[in-house]
Amino acid sequence: MKSEGAKRGLNKGLGIADFLLRLGAIITALAAAATMGTSDETLPFFTQFFQFEAGYDDLPTFIFFVIAMALVGGYLVLSLPFSVVTIFRPYAVAPRLLIFILDTVALTLTTAAGGAAAAVVYLAHNGNSSTNWLPICQQFGDFCQNVSGAVVASFVTVVVFMMLILLSGFALKRR
Amino acid sequence: MKSEGAKRGLNKGLGIADFLLRLGAIITALAAAATMGTSDETLPFFTQFFQFEAGYDDLPTFIFFVIAMALVGGYLVLSLPFSVVTIFRPYAVAPRLLIFILDTVALTLTTAAGGAAAAVVYLAHNGNSSTNWLPICQQFGDFCQNVSGAVVASFVTVVVFMMLILLSGFALKRR
Repeated sequence: MKSEGAKRGLNKGLGIADFLLRLGAIITALAAAATMGTSDETLPFFTQFFQFEAGYDDLPTFIFFVIAMALVGGYLVLSLPFSVVTIFRPYAVAPRLLIFILDTVALTLTTAAGGAAAAVVYLAHNGNSSTNWLPICQQFGDFCQNVSGAVVASFVTVVVFMMLILLSGFALKRR
Repeated sequence: MKSEGAKRGLNKGLGIADFLLRLGAIITALAAAATMGTSDETLPFFTQFFQFEAGYDDLPTFIFFVIAMALVGGYLVLSLPFSVVTIFRPYAVAPRLLIFILDTVALTLTTAAGGAAAAVVYLAHNGNSSTNWLPICQQFGDFCQNVSGAVVASFVTVVVFMMLILLSGFALKRR
């Protein structure tokens, strides 16, 4: 049987890990939103009627991605105070439960946005011969690179969220 | 302060709810995999060289969807015994923690598959003028309906998984 002090210390450690993971998730979530939101490429040639340009707002999936990642980033910033509370009050249940529930919702939102954007990025890279959707990445290489980077950042955010949720579960158990 | 018996009863109730939700999730996950896996449409006209046919295996995203949903369905079936254990031993922590961790992974897999398939279904319905991807649902109406139904089933599975995870969190707290 561990002493009460050691148990309290371990719970405090879980709180600190939660806080640090949350800081990392803020960076990756906002990086994903910013990279996607600023992805824009204009080709250096044009015809009389038409200029070739690609931006994230040409594809509704990418617009959803930017909104979802910005929302998640905002939620993470707002959740920091609750995370701090769990460091200084390791036995407080209400803030733990609150961030546990909201983290689950945020994980789902992030994963859905990342998965949807990944599916469209895959089509942009490879196209699909059965449906006659041609790849666009030959023409818009920089755009595709930015967009792929944003998807990778969102997947990192998903992994951090999974760790946050498991950490909350352990902390609730240890109460 | 509640009596020990009432507390034990409530934990048992959480275990029964977990079991019933898991049964529902098995049905929706396998329905999603089966609906997507059997979506296949051949148009009633053909040219000399070509027959018009659409199946889920024409799009890699849909193949991923079928595999992911079948995996999740299989995991859910295998998790039933652990769920039963939590009914009869409300204070056992190991099975609870195990299904909590695996549920989080399964939620992420289901959401990623559902989100990716939804993005492609949206393109199939609406197309995209910027990238010159034409909608295919005018030609392959039945195929699109099957596929959309599978996506809806996967989203129901996602909601059930979120409930299962929150339920596990509460059960761990109540230990």
